[in-house]
Amino acid sequence: MERMIIDMDEVIADPMGDMIQWYRKEYGKDVDYDKMKVGSWLAGFPSEHQAIVSERLHSVGFFRNLPLIEGCVPVIEGINDKYELFIVSAATEFPNSLKEKLDWLLEHFPFLNWRQLVLCGDKRMIVGDHMIDDHARNLIHFPGQKYLFNTPHNVDVTGYKRISNWEEAAEIFL
Amino acid sequence: MERMIIDMDEVIADPMGDMIQWYRKEYGKDVDYDKMKVGSWLAGFPSEHQAIVSERLHSVGFFRNLPLIEGCVPVIEGINDKYELFIVSAATEFPNSLKEKLDWLLEHFPFLNWRQLVLCGDKRMIVGDHMIDDHARNLIHFPGQKYLFNTPHNVDVTGYKRISNWEEAAEIFL
Repeated sequence: MERMIIDMDEVIADPMGDMIQWYRKEYGKDVDYDKMKVGSWLAGFPSEHQAIVSERLHSVGFFRNLPLIEGCVPVIEGINDKYELFIVSAATEFPNSLKEKLDWLLEHFPFLNWRQLVLCGDKRMIVGDHMIDDHARNLIHFPGQKYLFNTPHNVDVTGYKRISNWEEAAEIFL
Repeated sequence: MERMIIDMDEVIADPMGDMIQWYRKEYGKDVDYDKMKVGSWLAGFPSEHQAIVSERLHSVGFFRNLPLIEGCVPVIEGINDKYELFIVSAATEFPNSLKEKLDWLLEHFPFLNWRQLVLCGDKRMIVGDHMIDDHARNLIHFPGQKYLFNTPHNVDVTGYKRISNWEEAAEIFL
């Protein structure tokens, strides 16, 4: 069975979408997607509100209540039947997120178990046959097939196969 | 720089020692080290108290307050200077332990940072040049040099280089 490594944030969970929706509601303003191209969706928020956005990102409950990226659940279920699947999330920067990510994953993907989650800070020690991630910095060290999952902060990144959405992922892997 | 993977429980943190001390105080009884040889220190506790021991293991605060394995801090500091070091702990079975393990690590090893901790359920996707662990099941898939760290539950395990204590680890790696 080939091993598949799938990222969490911006790939199956949607912290950016949740933050944008909250920001529009709180401040009546939109984000600047162009500014995200430096490699971080946080950069899309006006500089005067960076601190409050970062504070919310670190707060208790934020990662527990995130929406799903559209269409991922049935495709992940199919991948889980066909591959040795691990969900690998760079999470130790956010201490409150650790248990919340585990609880969130087991709620939305009841066919997965605790053995399939990896919470780390750096992904350079992870190996497998396929890896789907939204950050080139996580893919760069990976020895297997690398897939960059489309999101506004990586539109300018070149040199990787891309996956636009979970429908496309199903076509590739299922 | 070679990559070093070091386990947490029974290697740098001492949940078994903490539980034995608590058990002696609460029940005035000793554990049976011989029974641990099945591969788990929990098996050393009398069957009538397995449930209460397991409950304490899952409780809030247990992993936050663990004692250190003797002599590990200065050796880990030396290893951290000489190797690319990651502390990799099979922790997702214990949801409350996740943040506690991060806080514990950064308290006792202030020269480490959140990027160096990996919390997982299974270690088969971890690669590096050296791995120190007390469980053969974690070492078996590892492609680099494997070292079994001595503890009562692994005394009967054969086929691995062994490390008796952190003084010996210093001789090997520093």
